[in-house]
Amino acid sequence: SGLVHIKNPHLDSMEEDVLYHLDLGTKTHNLPAMFGDVKFVCVGGSPNRMRAFAQFMHQELGLPGDGEDLADICAGTDRYAMYRAGPVLSISHGMGIPSISIMLHELIKLLHHAKCRDVTIIRIGTSGGLGIEAGSVVITDTAVDSSFRPRFEQMVLDDVVVRSTELDKDLAEELLACSKEIPDFPTLIGHTMCTYDFYEGQGRLDGALCSFSSEKKLEYLTRAYDAGVRNIEMESTAFAALCGLCGLKGESPHGRVL
Amino acid sequence: SGLVHIKNPHLDSMEEDVLYHLDLGTKTHNLPAMFGDVKFVCVGGSPNRMRAFAQFMHQELGLPGDGEDLADICAGTDRYAMYRAGPVLSISHGMGIPSISIMLHELIKLLHHAKCRDVTIIRIGTSGGLGIEAGSVVITDTAVDSSFRPRFEQMVLDDVVVRSTELDKDLAEELLACSKEIPDFPTLIGHTMCTYDFYEGQGRLDGALCSFSSEKKLEYLTRAYDAGVRNIEMESTAFAALCGLCGLKGESPHGRVL
Repeated sequence: SGLVHIKNPHLDSMEEDVLYHLDLGTKTHNLPAMFGDVKFVCVGGSPNRMRAFAQFMHQELGLPGDGEDLADICAGTDRYAMYRAGPVLSISHGMGIPSISIMLHELIKLLHHAKCRDVTIIRIGTSGGLGIEAGSVVITDTAVDSSFRPRFEQMVLDDVVVRSTELDKDLAEELLACSKEIPDFPTLIGHTMCTYDFYEGQGRLDGALCSFSSEKKLEYLTRAYDAGVRNIEMESTAFAALCGLCGLKGESPHGRVL
Repeated sequence: SGLVHIKNPHLDSMEEDVLYHLDLGTKTHNLPAMFGDVKFVCVGGSPNRMRAFAQFMHQELGLPGDGEDLADICAGTDRYAMYRAGPVLSISHGMGIPSISIMLHELIKLLHHAKCRDVTIIRIGTSGGLGIEAGSVVITDTAVDSSFRPRFEQMVLDDVVVRSTELDKDLAEELLACSKEIPDFPTLIGHTMCTYDFYEGQGRLDGALCSFSSEKKLEYLTRAYDAGVRNIEMESTAFAALCGLCGLKGESPHGRVL
């Protein structure tokens, strides 16, 4: 049917669904009218960058006006920012798995309530490259954890549930084909490693704490490269797991490599 | 000496330290002049709320002007917001452990470079209460993980390092004593549980995914209460571990309970 799958039997019996961190709700907003025709959702960490991306899409799609005054749909909260340009929704998710997870739970319910069909979701955040040219774009085939395993460990109450982190292979190939039309943008498909920590978790030597040597760091990053990892960021495993379970065709991170 | 401890031997040999996510640095800013006399750092999730808190402190401290036009010290980035009112620094940290960790690494290095002494740090974010009156303030004695253990598991490259999550007991008692002067604010000392997930991790029945029953949720929350947990949030274990290791007298979350 192309609809978004909600896997929560409790939701049907709820009289109202408040999407608290988006400042939207089923009683306060007409979600089908506002979002029913959305076909693409692009997500990234920074609110300013997601506004700039929506403005860019507005111009690319030839929509009326210059797109400079796009309104933040989540203006009532400062947790996330959301902009719309035609069938494209552009949303910020902050940094890290817990932050993107809250947004995705509420976004997936939003798309469900709005009865959206055939939605493609793409994470366009930044990432650190591994053994590749600076400025490259890595299209993720599989998100892996800090031990290079294609899995996301989700705590459900105090149980650990292991979820798959594969992304849509056809979408990855489609994006790679698009990249061929744009010169000077090295683009490749590879594994993306997702960590819970930016400093100690990604082998940085300049945090407030660092207990490893430069050699130990290089040894770890070399092992990651040998396991197929081409870039590192902090959201992809949760993104792949949640989107996969809810039937959203997803790709992440179509990331600019720092 | 009351100075902040940096536990990173690499830092001394660095010519410049760029605090990237705060848009500050040792070569671009005179950190001792800007921050040397800071004595209190208050942190919370939302940028708007941390601005409002700085304005409130500005008025409470009787500083000149109405405090309405406090400048965001991190205006060059939208990752975090930082305001100052006299000796009090007020900083946002976003949602979840990865997000607060990035901010704390850079804040701790900032306090170190600025040669600050005897700094107290307090998290004043929101939290969900457990078996206590709505509107209560919970002062954390110990932060615990989702299995009620007083520990924080930090990934260092691909090794798990276990860190202590105890907070400053004297500071907790001091804050409790302050609360006695304010009527109509139920305040107590208890354990704070920190989770990686807001929906499935905290027993919510209204996420996009929910595989447990209302009974299973209650059974889990009852076990948490019996283990001494009085509120639940998403940053306290990382906050306690990082501040503890770096010699910052910390308390978290002096939290408003939703």
